[in-house]
Amino acid sequence: MPYFDAASSLPPHPVARQALLAALDDGWADPARPHREGRRARMLLDAARETAAEAVGCRPDELTFTPSGTHAVHAGIAGALAGRARAGRHLLVSAVEHSAVLHAATAHRDAGGTAAEVGVDRGGRVAPADVAAALAAAPGGTGLVCVQAANHEVGTRQPVAEIAEVCRAAGVPLLVDAAQSLPWGPEPGAWSLLAASAHKWGGPGGVGLLAVRKGVRFAPARPADERESGRAPGFENIPAVVAAAASLRAFRAEAEAEAARLSELVERMRARVPELVGDTEVVGDPVHRLPHVVTFSCLHVDGEALLHALAVAGFAVSSGSSCTSSTLTPSHVLRAMGVLSEGNVRVSLPPGTTSEDVDRFLAVLPDAVAGVRAQLLPPGAADGPAADPADTADGGAAAFTVDSLGKRCPVPVIELAAHLTRVRVGGVITVLADDAAARLDIPAWCAMRGQEYLGEAPHEGGPGTAYRVRRAA
Amino acid sequence: MPYFDAASSLPPHPVARQALLAALDDGWADPARPHREGRRARMLLDAARETAAEAVGCRPDELTFTPSGTHAVHAGIAGALAGRARAGRHLLVSAVEHSAVLHAATAHRDAGGTAAEVGVDRGGRVAPADVAAALAAAPGGTGLVCVQAANHEVGTRQPVAEIAEVCRAAGVPLLVDAAQSLPWGPEPGAWSLLAASAHKWGGPGGVGLLAVRKGVRFAPARPADERESGRAPGFENIPAVVAAAASLRAFRAEAEAEAARLSELVERMRARVPELVGDTEVVGDPVHRLPHVVTFSCLHVDGEALLHALAVAGFAVSSGSSCTSSTLTPSHVLRAMGVLSEGNVRVSLPPGTTSEDVDRFLAVLPDAVAGVRAQLLPPGAADGPAADPADTADGGAAAFTVDSLGKRCPVPVIELAAHLTRVRVGGVITVLADDAAARLDIPAWCAMRGQEYLGEAPHEGGPGTAYRVRRAA
Repeated sequence: MPYFDAASSLPPHPVARQALLAALDDGWADPARPHREGRRARMLLDAARETAAEAVGCRPDELTFTPSGTHAVHAGIAGALAGRARAGRHLLVSAVEHSAVLHAATAHRDAGGTAAEVGVDRGGRVAPADVAAALAAAPGGTGLVCVQAANHEVGTRQPVAEIAEVCRAAGVPLLVDAAQSLPWGPEPGAWSLLAASAHKWGGPGGVGLLAVRKGVRFAPARPADERESGRAPGFENIPAVVAAAASLRAFRAEAEAEAARLSELVERMRARVPELVGDTEVVGDPVHRLPHVVTFSCLHVDGEALLHALAVAGFAVSSGSSCTSSTLTPSHVLRAMGVLSEGNVRVSLPPGTTSEDVDRFLAVLPDAVAGVRAQLLPPGAADGPAADPADTADGGAAAFTVDSLGKRCPVPVIELAAHLTRVRVGGVITVLADDAAARLDIPAWCAMRGQEYLGEAPHEGGPGTAYRVRRAA
Repeated sequence: MPYFDAASSLPPHPVARQALLAALDDGWADPARPHREGRRARMLLDAARETAAEAVGCRPDELTFTPSGTHAVHAGIAGALAGRARAGRHLLVSAVEHSAVLHAATAHRDAGGTAAEVGVDRGGRVAPADVAAALAAAPGGTGLVCVQAANHEVGTRQPVAEIAEVCRAAGVPLLVDAAQSLPWGPEPGAWSLLAASAHKWGGPGGVGLLAVRKGVRFAPARPADERESGRAPGFENIPAVVAAAASLRAFRAEAEAEAARLSELVERMRARVPELVGDTEVVGDPVHRLPHVVTFSCLHVDGEALLHALAVAGFAVSSGSSCTSSTLTPSHVLRAMGVLSEGNVRVSLPPGTTSEDVDRFLAVLPDAVAGVRAQLLPPGAADGPAADPADTADGGAAAFTVDSLGKRCPVPVIELAAHLTRVRVGGVITVLADDAAARLDIPAWCAMRGQEYLGEAPHEGGPGTAYRVRRAA
């Protein structure tokens, strides 16, 4: 039963397991103590730090082990901003950062700072020129820029080295969230801080990395603690740290060959999915990509139902659809890219995934999507002209309003498709909806169907939003 | 080679090792994911939470796993204070709390709040009436009281249930740092929050517990994160959490018998150490104690040198002497108790310590102390009347000043002892010192020697402090 949610967490690498076991006997004492047991623990911790620093491409004394990648991001952002509080209280982040970064930005705003997002193109990529422009337009000085190395939902890699140059020229440090990319290789470029997370490469949970280059101003968060240069409070889990470092090195030893192999499988999926499943949009930059992530969205599909159907077929995948989220809003990443969020599926292949695993997935996907669509769609509703008497090119009304209030994704888009032919070509159909996904998915549907999206406005005299579409064909 | 630093960290309990291994296969996925792997991880996490909650004596939904005991303390204090920000910004802590609590108090002060310490008696115990008085005297409202269940340096247990009553009557929540006591039993009384740390009972590092009783106002720290009720950000290390819960239950199964056995060994040490080693003060409450901790201080001994001598003899112990600390100040716990800090040794026995281990320690201790004293003391200097011509009861000067500036603990006290007889009985000897330990150890020496401590004053016209002692005999 293939597990295709590698970007969420990987099972322990065999080397992680071995290292963990080996370090249990010597890694339990307090490494700050001068006695024999403490010194043994310290030696393990020091050796792990050297191993991890080599993999990151930094000096051991620049590297801190943290209790998670989230903690590394939070501590890195807070520390860099506090260290440069005099230079500026403005924080610049890309619009597709991990929620850990966005939550840190919110906390910074709540504490009186300012923060802004740099947008991305339809592939999810940040333009270095946009970073430069945002730095130039920033109110007061900018304390920190955060750009992820590669996106966790769509696999798009960012031009980190170029963005680092822009930041260097502006004298602003750059924090790179390398959670998804670090297993595959060190992050090039003159970044200032870097964060990563061990369970993304088959290391244990509970271990993050935070690298802070020498010369970067950094004020550790309070309350103070003497461990890990004051950047991660609390007693270290040294066996886990040892396992994290050892498994990163082991993952890297296989990374180049595995990346080439998985990239081929991903390319196959990116090409085949739209052929096998109608009305599907493959998302993410086609060239600048992680080797193991492929993401697509399926029109007229409830993402949660599709996840369930794939799980029944034996495939564990992930989704950025709003219907799978407790927040009822579609993924901010898909939103920032402006792509369809309905029926969104992220497939992330663990090392060792075979060609046969991928073929089996491609074999079950069409039926899984068709089954989910059949539950939602009236027969023929979204697939072609309905048998409505108004359905002629010049017949039908000049305007029609669909009330989808209170209906959740993907129903508003399904109702839009079902009722489009009630208006004549050139006529305007208005969808009233209060589901957050409609804002993203109605324009995306128009682009996929060649219809003209006219925009949105508050629903006059009522709740929700009115989305207007001109029938083009 | 006995390891007598159990209060710092314990080697992994066999059950912790087994549970860790057993959970590696099923505990690596994201427990927030709906797929099979995620659900398996979630089941392990839920079961661990139930086990730990039972041991704590709270409901599972009141218990959060944190990345460390320090994190539990920091998050608990910050969350409770933020949740009651309208009720009051004053924080009350005992003077002998762990540094994690004191650092959180400092951070609270730096953020504009107020904080005060409740003192302890010479045994290290907080009087509930003192907490009541401090609450009554607090400026504005008090947001939180923090009192540890048992002290990590001297083993003194606090009257937590009584203090909880005082707090309840005042309508102020009580946070109990149970890091040292939780392995031995649940903490009774109506506490509001409780923090603990797994490596203190043979669980792995990287796992703390934070219990927050229903009804306690609590605002999680920012940045926000959806895991662990928002109280501990980042991906959980589930195998470590499982190991922590299982080993707590296993430790508890042996705790009653082991506590009785270790208490006897500790009582033997508390009785024998002063008999075997002259000028030694056993510290900590003689009755209200942890079963496995004994602490004593040795006059005219450099704590670091004694630790080293004991390590050479094969015993790993700890010390609160300033000379073993990077901060050059003696332990704040010993300072709050007003006891001698020179030559301080904390012996904390792990489960399984044998009577023979303790006897061996008692056998090597006198020579270890004597060896260290011999390095520092001129022959006979501190042990009896010096062969100084001025040494007669009515001879000698009326006043004499010893310049110990620039000399570190325990030298100022040694020089005071060596020169005391330069003044006649009733005369005053003044010691000039700039070592922080002198403030604690000169009065403690006077109490041990039956001399009259007159107090301290700034050294007029020079650096350091002038400590004045009247020769009584």
